Amino acid sequence: MKPLFHPDIDDVAPADIFAALADPIRLGILVALSDATEMDKARCSNFVGLASPSLLSYHFAKLREAGITHMRVEGTSRYLSIRRADLDRRFPGLLDSVIEAAQRDPSLPRVPEPAQAKG
Amino acid sequence: MKPLFHPDIDDVAPADIFAALADPIRLGILVALSDATEMDKARCSNFVGLASPSLLSYHFAKLREAGITHMRVEGTSRYLSIRRADLDRRFPGLLDSVIEAAQRDPSLPRVPEPAQAKG
Repeated sequence: MKPLFHPDIDDVAPADIFAALADPIRLGILVALSDATEMDKARCSNFVGLASPSLLSYHFAKLREAGITHMRVEGTSRYLSIRRADLDRRFPGLLDSVIEAAQRDPSLPRVPEPAQAKG
Repeated sequence: MKPLFHPDIDDVAPADIFAALADPIRLGILVALSDATEMDKARCSNFVGLASPSLLSYHFAKLREAGITHMRVEGTSRYLSIRRADLDRRFPGLLDSVIEAAQRDPSLPRVPEPAQAKG
Protein backbone atom coordinates (compact mmCIF):
# COMPACT_ATOMS: atom_id res chain seq x y z
CA MET A 1 0.00 0.00 0.00
CA LYS A 2 1.27 3.43 -0.94
CA PRO A 3 2.08 5.52 2.13
CA LEU A 4 -0.42 8.30 2.69
CA PHE A 5 0.69 11.79 1.74
CA HIS A 6 0.95 14.28 4.60
CA PRO A 7 2.20 17.73 3.56
CA ASP A 8 4.97 19.51 5.40
CA ILE A 9 3.09 22.01 7.56
CA ASP A 10 5.32 24.82 6.33
CA ASP A 11 4.09 24.20 2.79
CA VAL A 12 0.45 24.66 3.78
CA ALA A 13 -1.06 28.03 2.90
CA PRO A 14 -3.85 29.55 5.01
CA ALA A 15 -6.22 29.47 2.02
CA ASP A 16 -5.71 25.67 1.78
CA ILE A 17 -6.63 25.30 5.44
CA PHE A 18 -9.79 27.37 5.01
CA ALA A 19 -10.80 25.46 1.87
CA ALA A 20 -10.58 22.24 3.87
CA LEU A 21 -12.75 23.76 6.60
CA ALA A 22 -15.40 25.04 4.18
CA ASP A 23 -17.70 22.06 4.66
CA PRO A 24 -19.98 21.21 7.59
CA ILE A 25 -19.10 17.50 7.49
CA ARG A 26 -15.37 18.20 7.67
CA LEU A 27 -15.97 20.66 10.52
CA GLY A 28 -18.03 17.96 12.24
CA ILE A 29 -15.14 15.50 11.88
CA LEU A 30 -12.73 18.11 13.29
CA VAL A 31 -14.93 18.84 16.29
CA ALA A 32 -15.31 15.10 17.01
CA LEU A 33 -11.53 14.62 16.76
CA SER A 34 -10.85 17.57 19.03
CA ASP A 35 -12.94 15.82 21.64
CA ALA A 36 -11.38 12.37 21.12
CA THR A 37 -9.52 11.48 24.28
CA GLU A 38 -9.73 7.76 23.67
CA MET A 39 -7.90 6.28 20.75
CA ASP A 40 -10.96 4.29 19.76
CA LYS A 41 -13.03 7.40 19.11
CA ALA A 42 -10.70 8.47 16.33
CA ARG A 43 -11.16 5.26 14.38
CA CYS A 44 -12.32 6.30 10.92
CA SER A 45 -15.14 3.77 11.05
CA ASN A 46 -16.71 5.80 13.85
CA PHE A 47 -17.68 8.50 11.38
CA VAL A 48 -20.00 6.36 9.27
CA GLY A 49 -23.03 8.24 10.59
CA LEU A 50 -21.87 11.42 8.87
CA ALA A 51 -21.72 10.39 5.22
CA SER A 52 -21.36 7.46 2.83
CA PRO A 53 -18.01 5.61 2.93
CA SER A 54 -16.80 7.08 -0.36
CA LEU A 55 -17.79 10.61 0.64
CA LEU A 56 -16.10 10.13 4.02
CA SER A 57 -12.89 9.01 2.28
CA TYR A 58 -13.03 12.19 0.21
CA HIS A 59 -13.46 14.36 3.31
CA PHE A 60 -10.66 12.53 5.17
CA ALA A 61 -8.34 13.14 2.21
CA LYS A 62 -9.24 16.83 2.05
CA LEU A 63 -8.40 17.30 5.74
CA ARG A 64 -5.18 15.29 5.43
CA GLU A 65 -3.95 17.02 2.26
CA ALA A 66 -4.51 20.42 3.88
CA GLY A 67 -2.22 19.45 6.77
CA ILE A 68 -5.04 19.43 9.32
CA THR A 69 -5.18 15.74 10.16
CA HIS A 70 -2.89 12.74 10.28
CA MET A 71 -4.11 9.32 9.22
CA ARG A 72 -2.48 6.17 10.53
CA VAL A 73 -3.23 2.78 8.97
CA GLU A 74 -3.01 -0.21 11.29
CA GLY A 75 -4.05 -3.51 9.79
CA THR A 76 -7.54 -2.98 8.42
CA SER A 77 -8.24 0.05 10.61
CA ARG A 78 -7.49 3.68 9.96
CA TYR A 79 -7.03 6.18 12.77
CA LEU A 80 -7.37 9.94 12.48
CA SER A 81 -5.86 12.64 14.62
CA ILE A 82 -5.48 16.41 14.46
CA ARG A 83 -1.94 17.68 13.74
CA ARG A 84 -2.28 20.00 16.70
CA ALA A 85 1.40 20.60 17.43
CA ASP A 86 2.15 21.39 13.77
CA LEU A 87 -0.88 23.65 13.38
CA ASP A 88 -0.30 25.46 16.68
CA ARG A 89 3.29 26.16 15.70
CA ARG A 90 2.49 27.40 12.20
CA PHE A 91 -0.80 29.20 12.89
CA PRO A 92 -0.92 29.98 16.64
CA GLY A 93 -4.44 30.13 18.02
CA LEU A 94 -6.14 29.28 14.74
CA LEU A 95 -7.12 25.69 15.46
CA ASP A 96 -8.70 26.48 18.82
CA SER A 97 -10.73 29.38 17.44
CA VAL A 98 -11.86 27.28 14.46
CA ILE A 99 -13.03 24.46 16.72
CA GLU A 100 -14.75 26.91 19.05
CA ALA A 101 -16.53 28.54 16.08
CA ALA A 102 -17.61 25.17 14.73
CA GLN A 103 -18.92 24.07 18.13
CA ARG A 104 -21.18 27.13 18.19
CA ASP A 105 -22.98 26.00 15.04
CA PRO A 106 -26.12 24.14 16.10
CA SER A 107 -26.57 22.74 12.58
CA LEU A 108 -23.14 21.09 12.51
CA PRO A 109 -23.33 17.31 11.86
CA ARG A 110 -22.55 15.47 15.09
CA VAL A 111 -20.70 12.19 15.22
CA PRO A 112 -22.78 9.64 17.16
CA GLU A 113 -21.13 8.50 20.39
CA PRO A 114 -19.51 5.10 19.91
CA ALA A 115 -21.40 2.26 21.56
CA GLN A 116 -20.00 1.40 24.97
CA ALA A 117 -18.10 -1.89 24.81
CA LYS A 118 -18.18 -2.34 28.56
CA GLY A 119 -21.17 -2.01 30.83
CA MET B 1 -29.85 50.94 -6.97
CA LYS B 2 -30.80 47.87 -5.01
CA PRO B 3 -29.45 47.94 -1.44
CA LEU B 4 -26.58 45.50 -0.92
CA PHE B 5 -27.39 42.33 0.96
CA HIS B 6 -25.60 41.86 4.28
CA PRO B 7 -26.58 38.69 6.17
CA ASP B 8 -27.55 38.71 9.82
CA ILE B 9 -24.38 37.49 11.53
CA ASP B 10 -26.40 34.92 13.48
CA ASP B 11 -27.41 33.30 10.20
CA VAL B 12 -23.80 32.80 9.12
CA ALA B 13 -22.44 29.27 9.54
CA PRO B 14 -18.74 28.68 10.21
CA ALA B 15 -18.42 26.70 6.96
CA ASP B 16 -19.65 29.77 5.03
CA ILE B 17 -16.97 31.90 6.69
CA PHE B 18 -14.24 29.41 5.81
CA ALA B 19 -15.46 29.10 2.22
CA ALA B 20 -15.13 32.87 1.89
CA LEU B 21 -11.59 32.72 3.30
CA ALA B 22 -10.50 29.89 0.98
CA ASP B 23 -8.89 32.19 -1.55
CA PRO B 24 -5.58 34.07 -1.38
CA ILE B 25 -7.02 37.22 -2.97
CA ARG B 26 -9.86 37.39 -0.44
CA LEU B 27 -7.38 36.81 2.39
CA GLY B 28 -5.25 39.59 0.93
CA ILE B 29 -8.25 41.92 0.93
CA LEU B 30 -9.00 40.97 4.55
CA VAL B 31 -5.43 41.60 5.69
CA ALA B 32 -5.40 44.99 3.94
CA LEU B 33 -8.73 45.92 5.56
CA SER B 34 -7.52 44.84 8.99
CA ASP B 35 -4.70 47.30 8.57
CA ALA B 36 -6.87 50.12 7.24
CA THR B 37 -6.75 52.90 9.75
CA GLU B 38 -7.61 55.60 7.25
CA MET B 39 -10.98 55.55 5.59
CA ASP B 40 -9.42 56.13 2.20
CA LYS B 41 -7.51 52.86 2.32
CA ALA B 42 -10.73 50.90 2.41
CA ARG B 43 -12.00 52.39 -0.82
CA CYS B 44 -12.71 49.47 -3.12
CA SER B 45 -10.78 51.15 -5.92
CA ASN B 46 -7.59 50.71 -3.88
CA PHE B 47 -7.68 47.00 -4.55
CA VAL B 48 -7.31 47.23 -8.32
CA GLY B 49 -3.79 45.85 -8.12
CA LEU B 50 -5.08 42.50 -6.86
CA ALA B 51 -7.38 41.41 -9.67
CA SER B 52 -9.47 42.58 -12.59
CA PRO B 53 -12.50 44.76 -11.71
CA SER B 54 -15.00 41.97 -12.39
CA LEU B 55 -13.02 39.43 -10.37
CA LEU B 56 -12.67 41.95 -7.55
CA SER B 57 -16.44 42.49 -7.53
CA TYR B 58 -16.88 38.74 -7.23
CA HIS B 59 -14.47 38.55 -4.30
CA PHE B 60 -16.07 41.55 -2.55
CA ALA B 61 -19.48 39.87 -2.89
CA LYS B 62 -18.16 36.57 -1.48
CA LEU B 63 -16.78 38.33 1.60
CA ARG B 64 -19.94 40.39 2.05
CA GLU B 65 -22.36 37.48 1.61
CA ALA B 66 -20.43 35.45 4.20
CA GLY B 67 -20.90 38.23 6.76
CA ILE B 68 -17.22 39.11 6.88
CA THR B 69 -17.31 42.58 5.35
CA HIS B 70 -19.66 45.50 5.05
CA MET B 71 -19.84 47.54 1.86
CA ARG B 72 -21.04 51.11 1.87
CA VAL B 73 -21.90 52.94 -1.34
CA GLU B 74 -21.35 56.69 -1.34
CA GLY B 75 -21.90 58.40 -4.65
CA THR B 76 -19.69 56.63 -7.15
CA SER B 77 -17.37 55.20 -4.49
CA ARG B 78 -17.69 51.98 -2.54
CA TYR B 79 -16.10 51.51 0.87
CA LEU B 80 -15.30 48.21 2.53
CA SER B 81 -14.89 47.40 6.19
CA ILE B 82 -14.61 44.27 8.30
CA ARG B 83 -17.67 43.48 10.45
CA ARG B 84 -15.38 43.12 13.42
CA ALA B 85 -17.90 43.66 16.22
CA ASP B 86 -20.36 41.17 14.70
CA LEU B 87 -17.68 38.55 14.04
CA ASP B 88 -16.04 38.93 17.45
CA ARG B 89 -19.40 38.48 19.13
CA ARG B 90 -20.44 35.41 17.13
CA PHE B 91 -17.02 33.72 16.75
CA PRO B 92 -14.75 35.09 19.52
CA GLY B 93 -11.08 35.08 18.58
CA LEU B 94 -11.63 33.72 15.09
CA LEU B 95 -11.08 36.89 13.09
CA ASP B 96 -7.81 37.76 14.83
CA SER B 97 -6.36 34.28 14.40
CA VAL B 98 -7.44 34.19 10.74
CA ILE B 99 -5.76 37.54 10.04
CA GLU B 100 -2.64 36.46 11.92
CA ALA B 101 -2.50 33.20 9.93
CA ALA B 102 -2.95 35.06 6.65
CA GLN B 103 -0.24 37.58 7.55
CA ARG B 104 2.22 34.70 8.01
CA ASP B 105 1.79 33.63 4.39
CA PRO B 106 4.60 35.18 2.35
CA SER B 107 2.80 34.35 -0.90
CA LEU B 108 -0.33 36.29 0.02
CA PRO B 109 -1.22 39.00 -2.52
CA ARG B 110 -0.43 42.40 -1.02
CA VAL B 111 -2.46 45.50 -1.72
CA PRO B 112 -0.21 48.30 -2.98
CA GLU B 113 -0.02 51.28 -0.63
CA PRO B 114 -2.28 54.07 -1.91
CA ALA B 115 -0.43 57.00 -3.39
CA GLN B 116 0.00 59.86 -0.94
CA ALA B 117 -2.30 62.71 -1.87
CA LYS B 118 -0.40 65.20 0.24
CA GLY B 119 3.36 65.71 0.29
